[in-house]
Amino acid sequence: MTQKAGIIGGGVIGGGWAARFLLNGWDVSVCDPDPEAPRKVGEVLRNARAALPALSDGPLPPEGKLTFASTITEAVEGAAYIQESVGERLDLKHRVLAQIQQSSHGVPIGSSTSGFKPSELQEDAADPTTVLVAHPFNPVYLLPLAEVVPSPKTSPEIIARTKAILTEIGMFPLHVRKEIDAHIADRFLEAVWREALWLVKDGVATTAEIDEAIRMGFGLRWGQMGLFETYRVAGGEAGMKHFMAQFGPCLQWPWTKLTDVPEFNDELVDLIAGQSDEQSGAYTIRELERIRDQNLIGFLRVLKDRNWGAGKVLLAHDAARRQALPDTALGAPLETARMAVLPGWIDYNGHMTESRYLFAASETTDAFLRHIGADISYVGTGYSYYTAETHIMHLGEAKLGDALTGTVQVLHADEKRLHIFVRILKDGSPVATLEQMCLHVDMKAGKTTPAPRAILDRLLPIAAAHKALPWPKDAGRAIGQKKA
Amino acid sequence: MTQKAGIIGGGVIGGGWAARFLLNGWDVSVCDPDPEAPRKVGEVLRNARAALPALSDGPLPPEGKLTFASTITEAVEGAAYIQESVGERLDLKHRVLAQIQQSSHGVPIGSSTSGFKPSELQEDAADPTTVLVAHPFNPVYLLPLAEVVPSPKTSPEIIARTKAILTEIGMFPLHVRKEIDAHIADRFLEAVWREALWLVKDGVATTAEIDEAIRMGFGLRWGQMGLFETYRVAGGEAGMKHFMAQFGPCLQWPWTKLTDVPEFNDELVDLIAGQSDEQSGAYTIRELERIRDQNLIGFLRVLKDRNWGAGKVLLAHDAARRQALPDTALGAPLETARMAVLPGWIDYNGHMTESRYLFAASETTDAFLRHIGADISYVGTGYSYYTAETHIMHLGEAKLGDALTGTVQVLHADEKRLHIFVRILKDGSPVATLEQMCLHVDMKAGKTTPAPRAILDRLLPIAAAHKALPWPKDAGRAIGQKKA
Repeated sequence: MTQKAGIIGGGVIGGGWAARFLLNGWDVSVCDPDPEAPRKVGEVLRNARAALPALSDGPLPPEGKLTFASTITEAVEGAAYIQESVGERLDLKHRVLAQIQQSSHGVPIGSSTSGFKPSELQEDAADPTTVLVAHPFNPVYLLPLAEVVPSPKTSPEIIARTKAILTEIGMFPLHVRKEIDAHIADRFLEAVWREALWLVKDGVATTAEIDEAIRMGFGLRWGQMGLFETYRVAGGEAGMKHFMAQFGPCLQWPWTKLTDVPEFNDELVDLIAGQSDEQSGAYTIRELERIRDQNLIGFLRVLKDRNWGAGKVLLAHDAARRQALPDTALGAPLETARMAVLPGWIDYNGHMTESRYLFAASETTDAFLRHIGADISYVGTGYSYYTAETHIMHLGEAKLGDALTGTVQVLHADEKRLHIFVRILKDGSPVATLEQMCLHVDMKAGKTTPAPRAILDRLLPIAAAHKALPWPKDAGRAIGQKKA
Repeated sequence: MTQKAGIIGGGVIGGGWAARFLLNGWDVSVCDPDPEAPRKVGEVLRNARAALPALSDGPLPPEGKLTFASTITEAVEGAAYIQESVGERLDLKHRVLAQIQQSSHGVPIGSSTSGFKPSELQEDAADPTTVLVAHPFNPVYLLPLAEVVPSPKTSPEIIARTKAILTEIGMFPLHVRKEIDAHIADRFLEAVWREALWLVKDGVATTAEIDEAIRMGFGLRWGQMGLFETYRVAGGEAGMKHFMAQFGPCLQWPWTKLTDVPEFNDELVDLIAGQSDEQSGAYTIRELERIRDQNLIGFLRVLKDRNWGAGKVLLAHDAARRQALPDTALGAPLETARMAVLPGWIDYNGHMTESRYLFAASETTDAFLRHIGADISYVGTGYSYYTAETHIMHLGEAKLGDALTGTVQVLHADEKRLHIFVRILKDGSPVATLEQMCLHVDMKAGKTTPAPRAILDRLLPIAAAHKALPWPKDAGRAIGQKKA
C-alpha cells in the first residue's frame, strides 16, 4: 500500500523532502500557510523530476500523489512519517510540533533544523519519544546525507524506523550519537563561513576568489573522501600518526580569525551581496540550480560507477528496488533491460547520442549473457563472449528521460556462435535495432572455443524456441541496401 | 625548445610538481638529499601517468626528461622555473632559497608552503623580487588549484610569468592579492580540522562519521560551486541578502568550539589514528591513492563535459594545446581524430567497451563534419547529418592508455547522402572499422533535404578524390557473411 508523508513547511527544504518522497512512490501532503507554497513546491518538484531519475538504473516506482493541506492536522492524518521544515525559531517549532502531535499517533517526526538540539525541540512536547532531528542538505532530492539526531528521550524504535524510511527514499541516515548544537556538518559550514566573512571583510579575497579556492582544490577531494581519509592518504606510507605529527603544531599558529566574530552589519552584507552579484549574476537562480543539479548528477554517477561514497548509497537503493528478471515465456524476444535516457546520454541536438544506442544494446546483451550464466564470475574463469560484428539501424529518436526497454531475439546459436537481434524499444516501438555476432572465446589463448555445457543448456532451448519467431526484416542487411 | 623546471624537495608534493611538469613536456631536475627520493618521486609519477592523460582529449606532448641532481645548484642550472617543496620550517626554507638564488638567474621561485607568507620567505633573500608562494593541492598532478601569493617585494613580471607557467601546465593560478598566514584555502582546512578534532575528542563523532558528514553532503556541493555560490542558490529568488539575513544571526550562536584549541596530546593522536585505521585500514595507501585519483578524474571529466569550474581549466588547457587539423592530401583517408583510451572506457575484461568504439567513430565523424562546415553552429540553424545505419567490425582490442586515431574515407556522397568508412587505428592497424550511412536532414520537418552549396563545395571534392582509394574489403558486408 502507498504510504503517506506529512510535510510541514513548503520552502526549498520542505519542497525537497516532498519531491524525494513523491519520486520514491510515497503520497505527500504539504502544509504551509504561504499562498505561494504550491508554486514553490512545484518548482522544486520540477527540478527533482529532471534530476533524481538520472541517478537510477532501473525504473522508479510510480510517482506518489501530492496534495496541499490547509491544516497541520489534515497533512499529518494517516501519515507514516512527518517532516517539519518551518523557520528556524524555537517557539515556532514548539507550536508546530504541539499541533502535529495532536494527530500524529506515534509516528516519527523528523525536524530539518540546522541548529537546534532534539532535546530543545522536545521541551513541553506531549510525546517527546517520537521527536528527533533529520537534517538534510540542499538539494534534498539529490544529496543523500540526513543527519539523524535523537535525544536520550527519543525512542530507539522511532530512531530505527526513521533510518529505515530515509534509506527507503534513497538517503544516507547518519546517526549522530550525541546531540550537539548544529549537529556535525553545519559546525564545519559555520566555521568556514565565519572565516570566509573575515577574508571578504578584510579585503583578502572576494567571494569569487574564495569559491575558486574551494572548488578548484579541496572541494573536489571532499566530494569523494572526507577530511580524515584525505589526510590519511596525504600522510603516505607513514600513515595518520605521521600526518598528525606534521600538522598538529599548526594548531598553535594564528591561521584563522575564528576566535573573533566579525561584526555582521549592513556594510558587510552589501559587500558580500555585491561581490556575489558580480560573480554569479550572469545566471538566474533557476539556471544555477540546473547547473548545480547536473554537476551533482555527474559526480554521483561517477561515484556510483565506482561503488564509492555516495555512489554506494545509490547502488544499494537500486538493488533494494530491483525486481528479478521476469520469467518471460519463450514465445517472444526476451526483455532483459530497462533504462531511462540520462542527461549524459544527450547530444547538442537534445537527442540520445549515437554511441548510447550501442551502450543500451550492451546493457541488454549483458543481461542476456548473465541470464544464460555467462556472468562476471564466468568471465573471471578466462572465458567470455566477444562481439565480432554489429549492424545498427537507427529507426527513431530517444530523448532525455525516455524509458527504454531492450529485448533479445536469438537468431542462431551453436557451440561457438551466438547471433542475436537486439531491439531498443520506446513505447513498444524500436528506436534502434542491433544485429550482433558474438563469439565464445578463450581470452588467454585469444581464440574461439566451444561454450561449456552449463551455458549451452540454458542458451540452446531459447535459441530453439526463438526459431519460431518471425525473422526480423532488418537482419542480414548490408549498409545502403534497399529497405525491405 | 624544451624548458626545464628545478624541483627542490622530492616528497609527495615535490613529486607531484615533477609529474605535472614532466607530463606537460618539461624536463625536470629534482634535488632531495633523501636517498629514497627517486623511489618516492617514481611512485607519484606512476600514479600521475595513470591519471593525468585521462583528463586530456588530445595527445599529450612527449614526456620530459627526469633527472635527479645531487646539488641544488645542479637542479636549478638552466631552469626556467623553480619550485621549492622542502619541510615546513622557516630556517630550512631560508637556507634552501639562499642556495637556489646563487644560480637561479632571476627566474621565478615558487614555494609550496602552506603557512608562511612570502615576505617571511623573502627575509634576507639575495633577490626578494623573484620569490613568491605557489601553493598546490594534493594530488598536484590532478587538482588545478595553485594559490599564487606575492609580497609587495615580488616583481609584477615574476608574478605574471609564474601564472603563465602554471597555466601552461594545466593549473589554475589563483592570485591572492594580500598575503596572509595560510593563504586562503588552508585557513578553511584549518578551521574544519580544528573543529573535527574537538568532535572526535569529545566523542561526538568518529573519523568515519565525520567523513560521511562531509562527502555525502556539502563536499559534493563544494566540488562544483564554492561556499558563496552554493548559498546564493540556497537563498532562492530572494538572493544573497535574504540568505545572509537568515544565516547571519547564527554567528552569535555557540555552534563551534573554535575559540578553544584542543590539547594536542598522544591520547588524541592515538584516538584519531585508531579510528582512521578502522575506517580506511582495509585499503593500502596506494589503493586509496588510486581510488581517489579515479574519483577525481571522474569528477573533473563531469565538469569538463559541462564547461564548469575546474572543467573550464581543462578545456582551456586542451584548446591551448590543440593543433589545427592537418592539411592532409586527399590521396588518403582523412585523419580527423586522435584519442587516448580513458579509464572510463574500460570494461571488466580490461578492454575498451564495445560502445566506446562507436563513440570513437562519432568523434571521428563529428570532426569530419566540422571540417566540411556542418559544425555545431550549422546544427543551430536546424539542419544536421543524422546516422541512419552503422556496421561495425571488431578487429582488435584497445586497452587503457592506447593512442587511437580515427580516419574517414568517403565511399559516396551526393546532395542528401554521405556514405563513409571510418577506421579506428592503433599503431596504424584497425581495431575497428565502421561503415555509416548519414543523411542530411531538416530537423524541424523531420525529413531528408539536400545539403547547402557551402557544405557540398567542401564535401564533393573529397568524395571525388576518395573515389581513387581502394574499396574497403569490409564495406557492404552483411552480418555473418563469409570474410573476403
